[in-house]
Formats: sequence, structure tokens, C-alpha cells
Amino acid sequence: MAKKNAFYAQSGGVTSVINATACGLIETARQHKSVIGKVYAGHNGIVGALREELIDTSKETKKSIAALRHTPSGAFGSCRYKLKSLEENKAEYQRLIEVFKAHNIGYFFYNGGGDSQDTANKISQLSQSLGYPLTCIGIPKTVDNDLPITDCSPGFGSVAKYVAVSTREAGLDVASMCDSSTKIFVLEVMGRHAGWIAAAAGLAKDEESAPPHIILFPEIAFNEKKFLTKVKQTVKKHGYCVIVVSEGARYKDGRFLSEAGEKDAFGHIQLGGVAPTIAEMIKKETGYKYHWAVADYLQRAARHIASATDVEQAYAMGKAAVEFAVAGKNAVMPIIVRKPGKTYRWSIGEAKLSDVANVEEKLPRNYISKDGFEITDAARDYLTPLIMGEDYPPYKDGLPQYAKLKKVMVAKKLKKSFKV
Amino acid sequence: MAKKNAFYAQSGGVTSVINATACGLIETARQHKSVIGKVYAGHNGIVGALREELIDTSKETKKSIAALRHTPSGAFGSCRYKLKSLEENKAEYQRLIEVFKAHNIGYFFYNGGGDSQDTANKISQLSQSLGYPLTCIGIPKTVDNDLPITDCSPGFGSVAKYVAVSTREAGLDVASMCDSSTKIFVLEVMGRHAGWIAAAAGLAKDEESAPPHIILFPEIAFNEKKFLTKVKQTVKKHGYCVIVVSEGARYKDGRFLSEAGEKDAFGHIQLGGVAPTIAEMIKKETGYKYHWAVADYLQRAARHIASATDVEQAYAMGKAAVEFAVAGKNAVMPIIVRKPGKTYRWSIGEAKLSDVANVEEKLPRNYISKDGFEITDAARDYLTPLIMGEDYPPYKDGLPQYAKLKKVMVAKKLKKSFKV
Repeated sequence: MAKKNAFYAQSGGVTSVINATACGLIETARQHKSVIGKVYAGHNGIVGALREELIDTSKETKKSIAALRHTPSGAFGSCRYKLKSLEENKAEYQRLIEVFKAHNIGYFFYNGGGDSQDTANKISQLSQSLGYPLTCIGIPKTVDNDLPITDCSPGFGSVAKYVAVSTREAGLDVASMCDSSTKIFVLEVMGRHAGWIAAAAGLAKDEESAPPHIILFPEIAFNEKKFLTKVKQTVKKHGYCVIVVSEGARYKDGRFLSEAGEKDAFGHIQLGGVAPTIAEMIKKETGYKYHWAVADYLQRAARHIASATDVEQAYAMGKAAVEFAVAGKNAVMPIIVRKPGKTYRWSIGEAKLSDVANVEEKLPRNYISKDGFEITDAARDYLTPLIMGEDYPPYKDGLPQYAKLKKVMVAKKLKKSFKV
Repeated sequence: MAKKNAFYAQSGGVTSVINATACGLIETARQHKSVIGKVYAGHNGIVGALREELIDTSKETKKSIAALRHTPSGAFGSCRYKLKSLEENKAEYQRLIEVFKAHNIGYFFYNGGGDSQDTANKISQLSQSLGYPLTCIGIPKTVDNDLPITDCSPGFGSVAKYVAVSTREAGLDVASMCDSSTKIFVLEVMGRHAGWIAAAAGLAKDEESAPPHIILFPEIAFNEKKFLTKVKQTVKKHGYCVIVVSEGARYKDGRFLSEAGEKDAFGHIQLGGVAPTIAEMIKKETGYKYHWAVADYLQRAARHIASATDVEQAYAMGKAAVEFAVAGKNAVMPIIVRKPGKTYRWSIGEAKLSDVANVEEKLPRNYISKDGFEITDAARDYLTPLIMGEDYPPYKDGLPQYAKLKKVMVAKKLKKSFKV
């Protein structure tokens, strides 16, 4: 096998462990120097390849690369840029191949969600037909946990842990003051289409009376009357009610709850997401004092409370991607396979990119209780192992110390620039 | 000294370390059994005394009490109930004394902010005049850090750490995607009157380009034009802008920023706090894509990322309160005294309740930069030690294990009930 350089790009919304994947990939590539030359990372993801903005990771010290394992966000930059279809914009694909050719890149590692796996698959096919065959390996990443085939997606376990821990903690806060103060607490979490993250909040509940008392999933059509009845029952029974709502919660007709609050009858924009919308809805009906929180980026950046299982899997996916490439595999993605048995054990498997691309895995109905407001034991069995273990970053002066890269850019070789 | 029981109550908004104070107090009281009999905790704070709802802490195991050290929120319940002035409602004070008498309570420990210290002081005076002299010791607690005399208030250091860590983490997230996506991130933090918590976010900034780029303090009148100019300059320079805003941020005329968004011209209530208000303001001016987060209770309940310094001080205050009482002191509060020198060292001092009561300590002007948008080195020097050290709770199945108390109620002795 002729020695070629590798290109690695982070794609889409970042997570607290995507850099652990980068760490696994770069460290492993460095162990295969006879086959893989340098690892170039796309500056801001795939856009970096189009613009010929490549970060030379060989200029980073061993220590810096190791520190990526405990550093949240995308260290090389990410983007939400989706390549158009081949018919719509062949020039983009040709440009990619041109850049890869110019820099002797023979390996393409694309670290992202379903869209990105689709792109990686297309590039694999196109590179063949353009006479510059590339080894294309997808690497799973998404806090949304909506990738198919793999047991879970790196990034999810840590958000799940953050949300479960935060729900438990804030729940205790509300419980301790509900007699005379706030009775309603609403926490809004991510998940535009699938309720995996909201479901994870359910892990905080360790006894019947414990929060969260209600979870609102995108998979279950929101019924205001049923919901308000449940809220009132909960306050009557426990003195307070903690609600975790997915940003993607919606009515039967598909309207998001957050949309509902966006404009009033006069067309004025109303601020706020679904948490304040829900809180205000309860206030109107019951008069209960409320508080609400929107974790937003805090949840997916919270490396300080990452799941050790998640970190380990994220690293393993980066490592496996390189090993797949070195073994001559192509157009595949390493996946996590849950082994049968009571104790959680997992191994690495593989999936064809064509099978992964553009499939969105939603929360199965049997993970949601009959009334639609809680998770089931099946969900608990699935979710619990994914948040297990703590993997704390190093601290200095009270703050986590995250990797700072030099990000040395590779000299451009192409004369033409490319506008994205 | 005749042996008497003690009454302990948690007051006002809870924190992630107020139970560490309870732990210090109960553990220490158990070491002084010749003087202090049982420690009764007020169920839901002072209201528990008025209602004669006393929790017998002697029924809790040593292990449960020890677990309070790592348990957030108020384990015995707290309340925002403020006793009226003696002239307005003497009956309340008389009832307290009655309950204390009935249960042979000679020590009154009140764990709260400025209001609570005022109450403790009044009760001390009144008990004298009613012929049932009580030893009244205040114990500092407030995330707002606005108590005078003491160097800091237990509860603050941990919120400060949470806010600084979260700002650093979310800041990395925004930085990694700002080229093609979100350029503005707004984090709303607590602090209705004083900007201590917002200031703590400034600790995340470890180089000129790092977030937070702008902090909005309640102490600095909000100037929309100046603010928007700074936002635009920041995005031009760094590609993105992270803003931390205190919930108490306000205009020159005293209106809260969050109020401004509450009603539109037609009187319709608009949802959301100050973070979405600020984000929308920027969007309108610049068109930049934004995200915002409101940490709300998450910040003050986040025991998982508590400051070890804060936990230690919280425990020490509970311990000192008992030692003060045993030493015959009265109407005082233990305080934290910062020792001079470069290395942070502290000792325990004392303040008269009358000096503490109802004084609100704001952020000094020299802690805020000239332009009003950042913290100064003086602020850093003050704040850094308070967030130092990690004190992780124990975990099981991926989740922190917090104390679960039996909360055995003491049998009532009074015939009359009391409506609060």
C-alpha cells in the first residue's frame, strides 16, 4: 500500500467527546506511519477541504493530541455545511478530489451524523469514477443518538449524563422549597426530532416520588389537557412537579410547542423556547410559581461531567476508523455493538455507509410509558450503561484545562480558490 | 451550662453546599452532647418552628449525616418566609419562643442570608425580654455573595465555579462553529441585585480572545448602543461573541432588561428572561445567528461541580456555629477571614448579627473594567481562590448519590396550631 496522507473533518453540531475521537484517530494514525503519512484536519470541517484550509496535525505535540481526549467542542472547527447532490453541484466534489490529490490524501475520515455519512459515501463512489480512489471511513458522532445500526452514538452518553445529573440536582432544589415557593420547574433539553436526550432525564428518577415527573418527547403528540391534568395531579401528590421537555416537543399537527409561542395575534415575536412556553401554560391554568432552565450548548459542551463510557467509545471509534482504513476497508463506519448479557459489554462492529446514510433512529415506543410521560424499564436498561463512569478533565486554579492547538496550516498548492 | 436542645433552620434560596453546613453543625453538636441535646431541624425552615414541625436529626445515621456534605439543596426544606417586624406581628415571635420552650430548645441556628441574620438577631433580643434567653447564632449562606463583613458567603464559590466552567465549555462550542453557524451565545446567570455570579464567568477568560467577551452586571447601567457596538467589534475581531448576563441587568432608569421584554405595546406578556431579550436585540441589529441558555436552578444545585474551597468553608461555618454557641457567644455569625499574602489562606472570625443584618454587599467598582464589560485583575484575585479544588460526590450507575434522610418528626407538644 503506497503511503498517503489522511484528511479528517468534524461535521455538524459538536459534542463534548468528538475531540476524543480525533485523539483516537490521530494517535492511531501515528502508529501506522508506513501507510498513513500526515493527518490533515479540515479547518471548520469539510469547508476546510473545499477552501484548501488544512491543519497539519503532525505539528501538534503528543501532549496536545492526548489532551484532545478531555477537551469538548470541535478543536479543528466544525460546520453545518452539507454538500449538494452530485447533480446539483458536481464542482464541489471535483474540488474536494482536486484538493485531496494536491495533498496526496488517500484517506478520508468524516466524523459526523447521518448527513455526513451520506457525504462520505458519495465521495467514496465519486473518487472511484474520477480515477482517484479514496478510502472513505465514516465515524459516528451525534448527541441526538439518532444514527441507525450502531448501539449508540458517541456524544450522546455525555449529554445524557449531564441531563440526568442536572435533573436530579435541580429536582432536589425545587423539592426543598416547594412548600412556600416554586412548585413547577421546566428544563428544556436538545433533540429536535428524537427524544433520546429527554429520555435520559428519566434516569434521575430513583423512586416513584422523585423527579422528573413528566417528560415531553417529540415522538408523543402534545396534548395540553392531558398534560395539565398530570401536572396538577403531581403537585397534589408530591408538592411539586419537575418537567423535562425536548426542544422538539410538538402538537399532533406537527407544530412545535416553541413555535406556538413565537408570535402573538398581532404578529409580534415572542421570545423564548419551549420551556418558558410550557411554564407559562401551567401558570395560566394553575397559578403555580415556576422556574425554567434552558441548557442549550451547556449540555453538549459539558465535558466536566462526561460519561466515561462515552469517552471510551468516542476514542475507540477514532482508533477503529484508522484500523479499518489500514485493513483496506472502504465506505464503512465503525459502530458500537452491545453484547448480550446483564453486565454491559460492547465491541466494535462495522456498518456500510450506504446503510447508515440519512436514516433517523427515533426513540422506540416501548421506551416510553403508556401515558407518554415517562420512560420504561426497557429504556432504563438501554440508557443506564451509556452514562456510567466519570472521566474528569484536569483542573488548574479551579477550571478545567482544555487542549490549545497550534493549528499550523498546510501551505496551499492550488492556484484557484473556491467559494463555499 | 444546662443541657438544651438546638434548633437549626435553612432559610431562603438553597445552595449546593448548605447541607455541608448542616453536616458540620450536626456532626459537631454530636460531639458536645453534655451541652447540646438533640438537634431539631425546622421542616421547611423557620416555618417548621412556627408550625411545630421539627425534624429529629438524632434519628439519622452517622452515614446519612456525613452524606449531607455532598448533597445539594436544603435537605430539611427551606422557605422564603420572612418574619414581620416585632410591632407588626409579635405573635409570630411569641409562638417561636413557645415552641422552643416546649421542646427545651436553648440554641437557635439560622442558616441564611442578610434577612435571616436580621431575624436571628431579633429573636435573640426578644428571647431575653420574654424571659427565655436563647443562644442565637447566624450562619452565612447565599449564592449571591452579598453578605457584608465575611470575605465570601458559602454557596457562592460553587455557583461561581459552575458558571466559569460552563462559560468556558460553551464558549469552546461556539468558537468551533462560528464560521458557518451561531456567532452569538448568551448565558443568563443569577444575581438580582449584585453581579458577583456574573463576574465569576470572567474567570473562564484565560487569554484576550477567549470568552466571555462581554459581561453585563446589575451594577452597570445597560447602554444598548455601547453594548451593540462592542458585540459587533467582538465578532469582527474573534468571529463570535459570548455574553454572560446577570438576571439583574438593568437600564439607567432601573428597569430590568428582562422586564423590557415582558409586555409588548398591546399588553401581551412575552415569555423569557434577559438572555433571549439580549439575543433578540443583537439579532435585530446584526442578523447574527444566536443561541442562549438560562442555567436557573441548575447553577445553584450543581453539587457535581462544587468548589472544594466552598464545601470546606460551608462545613466549617456549621462547625464554628456550634463551637460559638458552646463557648457562650450569642447574636453572632461565624465569618470567613482572608489572610494576607499571595497564597490563599483563610480563618474563621465572627461578626455581630446586628452588623450583618440587611446590608447588601455589591460588586466593588474596581472589580469591573472601565468600559463596564469585563472584570479586572482585582476581581480575579478575589474570585479565583473561591472556585479552587474539586469535591466530587460519590456516583452509582452514572449518577451522583445524594443523602436520603428519614426525617422523623418530633411529637408535637403544643395544643394550638399556628397558621403561617
